[in-house]
Amino acid sequence: MRVAVLGVGLIGGSIGLAARARAEAEVCGYDPDPDVGARALELGAVGRVAEDLATAVRGADVVFVAAPVGALPATVAAALDAAGPDCVISDVGSTKRLLAQASADPRFVGGHPLAGAESEGVEHAREDLFDGATWYLTPTRESTAGVLYERLHALLRRFGAHPTAIDAATHDRLMANISHLPHVLANLLAAQAAGLLHNAGEQGERLPAVGPSFRDAIRVAGANSAIWTDIYTANGDALLAAIDELSDRLGDVRAMLAAGDGTALSAWIERARVERDALLGTGLSGGSVHELRVHVPNRPGVIAEIALALGEAGVNIGDLALAPSRDNSQGVVALWVDGETQAERAQELVTGLGFPVVRA
Amino acid sequence: MRVAVLGVGLIGGSIGLAARARAEAEVCGYDPDPDVGARALELGAVGRVAEDLATAVRGADVVFVAAPVGALPATVAAALDAAGPDCVISDVGSTKRLLAQASADPRFVGGHPLAGAESEGVEHAREDLFDGATWYLTPTRESTAGVLYERLHALLRRFGAHPTAIDAATHDRLMANISHLPHVLANLLAAQAAGLLHNAGEQGERLPAVGPSFRDAIRVAGANSAIWTDIYTANGDALLAAIDELSDRLGDVRAMLAAGDGTALSAWIERARVERDALLGTGLSGGSVHELRVHVPNRPGVIAEIALALGEAGVNIGDLALAPSRDNSQGVVALWVDGETQAERAQELVTGLGFPVVRA
Repeated sequence: MRVAVLGVGLIGGSIGLAARARAEAEVCGYDPDPDVGARALELGAVGRVAEDLATAVRGADVVFVAAPVGALPATVAAALDAAGPDCVISDVGSTKRLLAQASADPRFVGGHPLAGAESEGVEHAREDLFDGATWYLTPTRESTAGVLYERLHALLRRFGAHPTAIDAATHDRLMANISHLPHVLANLLAAQAAGLLHNAGEQGERLPAVGPSFRDAIRVAGANSAIWTDIYTANGDALLAAIDELSDRLGDVRAMLAAGDGTALSAWIERARVERDALLGTGLSGGSVHELRVHVPNRPGVIAEIALALGEAGVNIGDLALAPSRDNSQGVVALWVDGETQAERAQELVTGLGFPVVRA
Repeated sequence: MRVAVLGVGLIGGSIGLAARARAEAEVCGYDPDPDVGARALELGAVGRVAEDLATAVRGADVVFVAAPVGALPATVAAALDAAGPDCVISDVGSTKRLLAQASADPRFVGGHPLAGAESEGVEHAREDLFDGATWYLTPTRESTAGVLYERLHALLRRFGAHPTAIDAATHDRLMANISHLPHVLANLLAAQAAGLLHNAGEQGERLPAVGPSFRDAIRVAGANSAIWTDIYTANGDALLAAIDELSDRLGDVRAMLAAGDGTALSAWIERARVERDALLGTGLSGGSVHELRVHVPNRPGVIAEIALALGEAGVNIGDLALAPSRDNSQGVVALWVDGETQAERAQELVTGLGFPVVRA
């Protein structure tokens, strides 16, 4: 397999390392900064470096665009221009609707690994960066070619990741709430505490000590301003909605506090405990692996449709394989799902889509 | 030394363990729940258990009240009634102004260790819970007896903690911003994400996966509702002010986003980075230990005055000792401070208070 990586920083470099070590892929890299490309080669994150984007993409089976969010649409468009008809192109950007145009192309599947590190740059790239990480994919029901989705899914599984299909708008709303808004709040908490301590102490003093839970609360504050300005801007409408919802919720708590309503506060905390436990207890259900065989017509979008239905219901597809019929008019998709409960739910969902399912 | 611990849960039990192991103290415990007292005895957190509060306090040199915030004022008052004239009484509550009445007594010094654990109960008590932890003390300039403050300070040092003096109102404002508000936001983020995911998926579905930074953001959500309702209520005014300030700051960011003002967003993130780094980089300056000898009149409040001036300026008093003059009319306080810069600052501050200082 030939893999091209466009942009070889922390994420691109880790993709290169994982593809080489875990999928025995030939990896060709390209970076607009030749020094970064040379460094990636030196570190073994890529097997060779191309002088331009088109050369890197030529002959690739899979292309990952790991450019900053601001440069994503143009870079993805260039990759689609340069790639052949049987190449799958994906990206790793943390907002997904901005690639709507590319998504109309059957060869493009948006992606976003929930992985990162405190330190940027190819120097911190690691082969195991994606171990156990959710890797969101945003195929479209209208266009995505099943065979290309299958190839990408299988490769990400070899990286150690859990590919999970989700539609782009849901992804962006989710990220606004579980990533972008928490980053905004961390920045605000840091600024507010700094302002308070500055007023409390005399100018230029060392600040009083802060406890471990506050350190956790502001750990992500002030993360790379160029990257985050792009992210906030690209996902501006979803983030605004998330801010407005938080403001409303904060207003409710303010009212309970102002009224000294201990009963309401206590009930509110109890609900948060249940919600937190549900959010954090999202591990695999464990148990045996179940195989489902689904008969599907052989047209673009079918695999996307199934993957999205399962992804949005929280059913994890451990593995996925396509077997087209001889005349290519229809085929069978095999899905492997962990645990009996999940397998039953998967069967129900896929049947609901109108496709016959057999438990193997 | 005889130490009484009133309330032997996680914090009280850890105080007992540390006092026995690190200060060779005789520790007598009391807990309104006899089962908890018996368990503390069994675990060695206390050397004996008293049947009532007054019996536990009788003959003690130091009393720690480790009751829930709601029960603190009454328990501290009872401890002051039962204690002798040469006993220092402290507490571990996370809001401090509610003990203003007790603070008029020269024997009372409010306290709050910035330490805790995910799990409550004496079963999780640990001798080393306070290692390296800031332990806020709220002596008053008007009343606190220097010799009692010294005794408490020395004992906390033996526990491995860093005692830091701060006035009660500043403490409560600080906690509202670095602890109570972050807890409120964690609850809100958990509720908001849960609501979103519930709407996105079908009812009763497993939730899509969340990334590691969101796990950090909601880790403290839904912490013990009885304890936190008390804390929020006891510190209601400071928390309301912190909420209002955050709302204003959130409004500013909302405006930048709505205007798509990348320059302003970027500058705002950059400032947050500087503030975060300043907040997290609050380690000791390191280097040699310096001794300062301060001549002071022998009256209540003097040690508090010095400790507060240094604590509020972020100068850490590693150790502190009093040497009263023969006629008891005046005395010398020896202060040990880490690092040359801190020692110079301490000398400047104490001189500013009108007390002669000699560097030993």
